[in-house]
Amino acid sequence: MQILIQTMYPNLVKHIQKYVKLNDEEIQILLTYAKPLSVKKRENLLIEGQTCKSLYFVEQGCLRLYFVDDKGVEQITQFAIENWWLTDYSSFNAQSASQFYIQSIENSVLYTIEHHLQEQLFKELPQLERYFRLIAEKAYAATQIRIKYLYDFSKVEQLQHFSTKFPEFIQRIPQYMLASYLGFTPEYLSEIRKNKL
Amino acid sequence: MQILIQTMYPNLVKHIQKYVKLNDEEIQILLTYAKPLSVKKRENLLIEGQTCKSLYFVEQGCLRLYFVDDKGVEQITQFAIENWWLTDYSSFNAQSASQFYIQSIENSVLYTIEHHLQEQLFKELPQLERYFRLIAEKAYAATQIRIKYLYDFSKVEQLQHFSTKFPEFIQRIPQYMLASYLGFTPEYLSEIRKNKL
Repeated sequence: MQILIQTMYPNLVKHIQKYVKLNDEEIQILLTYAKPLSVKKRENLLIEGQTCKSLYFVEQGCLRLYFVDDKGVEQITQFAIENWWLTDYSSFNAQSASQFYIQSIENSVLYTIEHHLQEQLFKELPQLERYFRLIAEKAYAATQIRIKYLYDFSKVEQLQHFSTKFPEFIQRIPQYMLASYLGFTPEYLSEIRKNKL
Repeated sequence: MQILIQTMYPNLVKHIQKYVKLNDEEIQILLTYAKPLSVKKRENLLIEGQTCKSLYFVEQGCLRLYFVDDKGVEQITQFAIENWWLTDYSSFNAQSASQFYIQSIENSVLYTIEHHLQEQLFKELPQLERYFRLIAEKAYAATQIRIKYLYDFSKVEQLQHFSTKFPEFIQRIPQYMLASYLGFTPEYLSEIRKNKL
């Protein structure tokens, strides 16, 4: 019976338990703060100019973070699939207007932690300070490497690297979104993939 | 007398106290883990292929994080001045070979926390989990915006933005390093600054 209950915990709980201890009672406390949210494909969670009010954990599905440039073109800067957190941290932490959009790419199930509840959650479960430290350090480490690639790799090399590192993800997202992330036009991406990959 | 003692604490302590509480006894514990290190201008703290063994806090001076591309050209991806932490988090957290170099730009005084002592420090001062969470989230927030600028701004716009945001810093670092950070040749930077700024 215990095993059955365990397997019913969401991925969120399992992910946190990889980093810090949470007993059953603490899990119940967590789940009063982290609320599930089902969103349909192409639902906006954040729009430029709004304040980012939540941390989003992808339980199932896929999100994108993007901005719209002054020509009206969408530029994707991040994706998040299962077991990733996504938020605009500048806007979330300062509770200031965001420069970004967050949108679901697929029908998705998320867990959200709202900004005004975060401090109370840390008071009740102080081990989450450690969990979110480790998550932020991992995310930051990834962007240090990502910035290196943006300086160092040609766009074609970035595509090759991305295809090697995340082969399933490449199949999963619409090609024009992959093009946006890599800074290609969709036509150019299609041309490269035909010829070089 | 209390005030006199307080002013003798390093910037490191004052910086941490902005985010979490540390009493005098806890400060003494911290200072047994965070060791001061004086480095001369152009001293290497990390070389590509080495494991990054420390977190570096800039008490006084300036550091740069850079990599060397396959043409042998140095590309700077980050600077750190007073009150900033700098490390290669991928290498530090996984204790794996780094793709980066860390070097002092000026004679500098640093505080270093070594990887093998970090867990013990967190056990003794658990409030530092919160401090380092907030630091990592701030750093990550800054890179989310930085990546947006790398997509969105021309190199000249990046220079203008950087000059407006960090005017003193622009005067402080060698111009060829600023050029490297922005992805210019030093000659092109000099040309732009004569004509446009």
